[in-house]
Amino acid sequence: MTILAASPFETYGFHLAIICSALGLGFALYLIKTILASPAGNERMKEIAGAIQEGAKAYLNRQIVSISRIAAVLFFVIGFVKDWPTALGFLLGSVCSLAAGFIGMRIAVLANVRTAQGATISRKKALQAAFNGGAVTGLLVVGLALLSVSLFWIVMQRVNPDHALSSLVGVALGASLISVFARLGGGIYTKAADVGADLVGKVESNLDEDDPRNPATIADNVGDNVGDCAGMAADVFETYAVAVIGAVLVGALTVATGAAVVFPFVLGGVSIIASIIGVIYVNLSNAKPANALMNGVLIAAVLSAIGFWPVTQSLFAGGLIVKDVLTGAVATYTANGIYFSTLVGLAMTAAAVLITNYYTATEYSPVRKIAAASETGHATNIIAGLAVGMHSTALPVLCIAGSIWLSFASAGLYGIAVAVMAMLAMAGIIISLDAFGPITDNAGGIAVMSGLPKEVRAITDDLDAVGNTMKAVTKGYAIASAGLAAIVLFGSYYVDLSDHLTKKEIAAIVSPTLEQIAAVKASVAARLDFSLKDPKIIIGLFLGGLLPYLFSAFSMNAVGRAAGAVVTEVRRQIAAKPGILRGEDTPDYGTCVDIVTKAALKEMIVPALIPVLAVVAVAMVPGGMTILGGVLTGSIVTGLFLGIAMTSSGGAWDNAKKYIEEGHHGGKGSEAHKASVTGDTVGDPYKDTSGPAINPMIKVVNIVAILVIPIFF
Amino acid sequence: MTILAASPFETYGFHLAIICSALGLGFALYLIKTILASPAGNERMKEIAGAIQEGAKAYLNRQIVSISRIAAVLFFVIGFVKDWPTALGFLLGSVCSLAAGFIGMRIAVLANVRTAQGATISRKKALQAAFNGGAVTGLLVVGLALLSVSLFWIVMQRVNPDHALSSLVGVALGASLISVFARLGGGIYTKAADVGADLVGKVESNLDEDDPRNPATIADNVGDNVGDCAGMAADVFETYAVAVIGAVLVGALTVATGAAVVFPFVLGGVSIIASIIGVIYVNLSNAKPANALMNGVLIAAVLSAIGFWPVTQSLFAGGLIVKDVLTGAVATYTANGIYFSTLVGLAMTAAAVLITNYYTATEYSPVRKIAAASETGHATNIIAGLAVGMHSTALPVLCIAGSIWLSFASAGLYGIAVAVMAMLAMAGIIISLDAFGPITDNAGGIAVMSGLPKEVRAITDDLDAVGNTMKAVTKGYAIASAGLAAIVLFGSYYVDLSDHLTKKEIAAIVSPTLEQIAAVKASVAARLDFSLKDPKIIIGLFLGGLLPYLFSAFSMNAVGRAAGAVVTEVRRQIAAKPGILRGEDTPDYGTCVDIVTKAALKEMIVPALIPVLAVVAVAMVPGGMTILGGVLTGSIVTGLFLGIAMTSSGGAWDNAKKYIEEGHHGGKGSEAHKASVTGDTVGDPYKDTSGPAINPMIKVVNIVAILVIPIFF
Repeated sequence: MTILAASPFETYGFHLAIICSALGLGFALYLIKTILASPAGNERMKEIAGAIQEGAKAYLNRQIVSISRIAAVLFFVIGFVKDWPTALGFLLGSVCSLAAGFIGMRIAVLANVRTAQGATISRKKALQAAFNGGAVTGLLVVGLALLSVSLFWIVMQRVNPDHALSSLVGVALGASLISVFARLGGGIYTKAADVGADLVGKVESNLDEDDPRNPATIADNVGDNVGDCAGMAADVFETYAVAVIGAVLVGALTVATGAAVVFPFVLGGVSIIASIIGVIYVNLSNAKPANALMNGVLIAAVLSAIGFWPVTQSLFAGGLIVKDVLTGAVATYTANGIYFSTLVGLAMTAAAVLITNYYTATEYSPVRKIAAASETGHATNIIAGLAVGMHSTALPVLCIAGSIWLSFASAGLYGIAVAVMAMLAMAGIIISLDAFGPITDNAGGIAVMSGLPKEVRAITDDLDAVGNTMKAVTKGYAIASAGLAAIVLFGSYYVDLSDHLTKKEIAAIVSPTLEQIAAVKASVAARLDFSLKDPKIIIGLFLGGLLPYLFSAFSMNAVGRAAGAVVTEVRRQIAAKPGILRGEDTPDYGTCVDIVTKAALKEMIVPALIPVLAVVAVAMVPGGMTILGGVLTGSIVTGLFLGIAMTSSGGAWDNAKKYIEEGHHGGKGSEAHKASVTGDTVGDPYKDTSGPAINPMIKVVNIVAILVIPIFF
Repeated sequence: MTILAASPFETYGFHLAIICSALGLGFALYLIKTILASPAGNERMKEIAGAIQEGAKAYLNRQIVSISRIAAVLFFVIGFVKDWPTALGFLLGSVCSLAAGFIGMRIAVLANVRTAQGATISRKKALQAAFNGGAVTGLLVVGLALLSVSLFWIVMQRVNPDHALSSLVGVALGASLISVFARLGGGIYTKAADVGADLVGKVESNLDEDDPRNPATIADNVGDNVGDCAGMAADVFETYAVAVIGAVLVGALTVATGAAVVFPFVLGGVSIIASIIGVIYVNLSNAKPANALMNGVLIAAVLSAIGFWPVTQSLFAGGLIVKDVLTGAVATYTANGIYFSTLVGLAMTAAAVLITNYYTATEYSPVRKIAAASETGHATNIIAGLAVGMHSTALPVLCIAGSIWLSFASAGLYGIAVAVMAMLAMAGIIISLDAFGPITDNAGGIAVMSGLPKEVRAITDDLDAVGNTMKAVTKGYAIASAGLAAIVLFGSYYVDLSDHLTKKEIAAIVSPTLEQIAAVKASVAARLDFSLKDPKIIIGLFLGGLLPYLFSAFSMNAVGRAAGAVVTEVRRQIAAKPGILRGEDTPDYGTCVDIVTKAALKEMIVPALIPVLAVVAVAMVPGGMTILGGVLTGSIVTGLFLGIAMTSSGGAWDNAKKYIEEGHHGGKGSEAHKASVTGDTVGDPYKDTSGPAINPMIKVVNIVAILVIPIFF
């Protein structure tokens, strides 16, 4: 190996990342300007949109207050128990995660009415309004994540280099924990409102979806925004931040060169530019909506793949030398191997999208089987949906296993981290698709409630169907990337723990000899065996495996309870003012919004604290260090299966209902349709509350474990 | 340590086990005689019972033919690829597992009508008939298992000691694989008939359960026997055999003394006597049925605990010395420690029964919450039931983790094996409870179909409710013991693999030096690290975790398809002969029985082969030896959670329906009742097909892995 001049990407990598983030944020601002410049419809539309905006803002403001209290307590706990740089990182992660959710939601409630208005002109105008609303969220989330992590890292490196790494873990914890709250609170809100509105509205009073006579209809539309927009934005912000931080941790702890640390930032920067081009393509495209969106993603992926090449070749021209903390064993990987890892990440993104699409889109057999099973009743619809969920775990898990294999073979643990980063680098355009869903859903609601003509509603319905599929596929992407990111965090736990124990035990020896240092390392290696032969690891696997189950049970019940409160309130209003159903009295939308808001904020606390408290409790028992190894892995294993099964079942039930509503198996109003509504309702908390909340949850488990290392061990 | 004379239990342990088995079998024959001697009711009752007997026999005969073909193929495959002693063991395990299922089912279909007849005299007579029918199955299963494994081991020890251990693994494979087929075939049969009968009978034609006008009603009653009796008997036979064999494997490979090998057999023998006394107690007791049964179990457990004491103290008076195959490291455990492990197993039995009872009995809040949720519709009933299932995993998993911890601390891997054996030793009386369920269920059916008076039906209904709870709690026992037994098998995989590789590599060296032997052992130890740090293990965990999901998805779908076929047939008959519903035409029960039989036998093949083929496929890839370590553990982790969640949800849904039928939340015919019927129907394949079939499945995965060691590695 010849001695090489540092790559320009190593010298200017952070500058590049910051410039790209700024470009992303700037482009998002430009999109906001164009959205705001477009007309917001007639008075009735503005009034309804205003009610949704108000409800969403009211919820998010109270959510911010609730979460801020918890975050403030944790800030001081972390500061006193651990150190203030970590606490500072925690604060930054929390604030940015909250901001990502807040901004995403604010834009969505502005874009929804403009999408409805756009639909009165043309399908393309509607598509543009909805997609650009989503793109703002996407670009803001990745821009903000990359910018904040880069700047924080640069500042900490100068101010307090000793704590730079641990403060970065603080950022990850802040982002993840807030994201669990946002996912749970938003998820409970959206599904309690949805289920509640459906149960009394559709089932008892025979009202259509979004009928303005339903007192819970505004709450339902607010829910789409606080759950699908704010929750998803916080979730992906978190995974993005964790992907960068995980790569930095692994890079800093196992690799000698600065190239390994700057690389994830540059990857993120490159993909922001690729995503912007993808967004522009969608705006110019005249293809069918679903195709335009998918081509946009494809273009961003191809451009990223092209852009990653020179970066990788330049940064790792001399190869990558990885050193084991304990054994000192050295492995060398080539630039091509690392580049291959980025391709694995991009391929995994494509696989997650395509596989989830297969299991949840009306065109394919899984959804059609559920629809057919609805003919024999509610129960067979549910059985078929549950079976589809379980079946749908196979391909994603095989792909994840394959990704781990290939990226590890190419560049070790760092290779896995790089694959995850490449996967998350695509988040800008992927969230654009996801946020597209609630915007078109809301646009449809506004069109119905404001009585827009049938042709307009046909356009919004059509876009809504596309939005549904997009929401489902991005959930597949979110859970697959969360699983891989968690694996990287688990690797970081091991590396960090080895590093910590070695340093601590060597420091305890007065002027240690080389033999003593070697003995310490050997002893640490023996203790950190994490072998399945050790019953502590098996016990840990069981305990960790339990966490997603308990967490999901709590969050499912929370939706049930909150939905029950909505049902009671709607029944009360209808009984008190019978004129509501005849359209003579105006329902009191506000109390429903209020009830769900309070219920969601109350119910999110306990399940969100489960992962944190469980890890701390295990860390305190004898052998906790080893058991935790099992706990982290166990939570990833069952969490991944549960998350995929729940989100796929939910998406498939939803679209089976849509398929029947298109006129199959007896169409709307048939017994099959009623059965499919049951499936859709069961799927609601599955796909929008419990399932997606598992993503940040398994990362919280892993991050808390890293964080408690210096406290307990 | 002084040199001690061999314990009399070491010298005569096998004799004792064989005598106890013979006593168990003899007592079972005596019970059969008393059952046959009691009157079988009037002509109509005999006719209906005859139809059920015929259907059950027809199904089992065809199942035996189907399975025998597969078993024959596997016998030759194992014989040619591995060795004939193993193939012989496989044959013995297969035949005994089939026999256990067949006998259990035969007795149940004789006891059902006598229970109905007993109910015309007194509650006690009915209870005795049903319980003794169950007790026959229980005692036959454990007697047969202990006798066959003891005799086979003794014979193989003399004839071919080199292959004695591996032929025992053959027995375990035969028992487990046949048990997967029996569980799946029986489970698909019973639930397809049940769901099919309910969907058209109850829902479309408003017929009551067991109405003789329903063409699928005989198939439904046959199903109770082939699923709950034959399937469960084969399943527990298998777990029992695996518990003995696992303990023998661990004992033989890691412990120097013969005491460790004979110990599990003696434990089994002691508990058979304790179980016989428990059975006699139940027959004499005048307590309420549920209490009489539970007290019987308690007495058997206490007597076992007392009986285990002298055995353990005598056999391990000198302590237990365990030697690591590779490092040669020695650990010594005391007789008290080993005795403590048996108590852990008995306590785990109690915990599994009590916890499952809490989650599935009408007295406690989980079932009542589901019942209350039924008021707001089908969907909320399902959501509540799914949440209960997930929640119900917590305590059993914590108890299992605790059992592993305690028994490992007391006597290492052998301690875990002993705890499992103590748990399974109770199987005689526990299956008595389980088989009680389908017998009382059938008795109720016969009472309804033959028009017995209301008071008689009140007694059978009452016993049926007790039977339902018993069926549910024994499922908790079955899955918890299966999980622990699988852990022991995983330990055996590691021990056996170490032993095999060491011997093979040392044998390859011409006159190896001590240094060379040490080097081989060190190299094997390094390769068999099974560390979570190795991505191959993580990949294995994912692949293994997938198996229960895939398996359940296939079996759920199989029930759906087979039930659909029943629905079509019943609709056809009703359309062809409208007189059936008016009670003027006799339905053709035979075609329904025939359709479910064919469907069940066809549908069981693919899912049953999944675990076998998956293990063989993984064994063939590079690094397969390590990946398999992850696969085995992964399948246990997700299998345990999925199994517990499915069986608890199913049991809770079932009893929530019963609770509503008792008059709560509007009672029979209300909207809440309809919703609860949906939950019950969804729970059918959950608790009676997919959930319980996971028990033998995770063991097949582990046993096949042990079996392929000398072939691939």
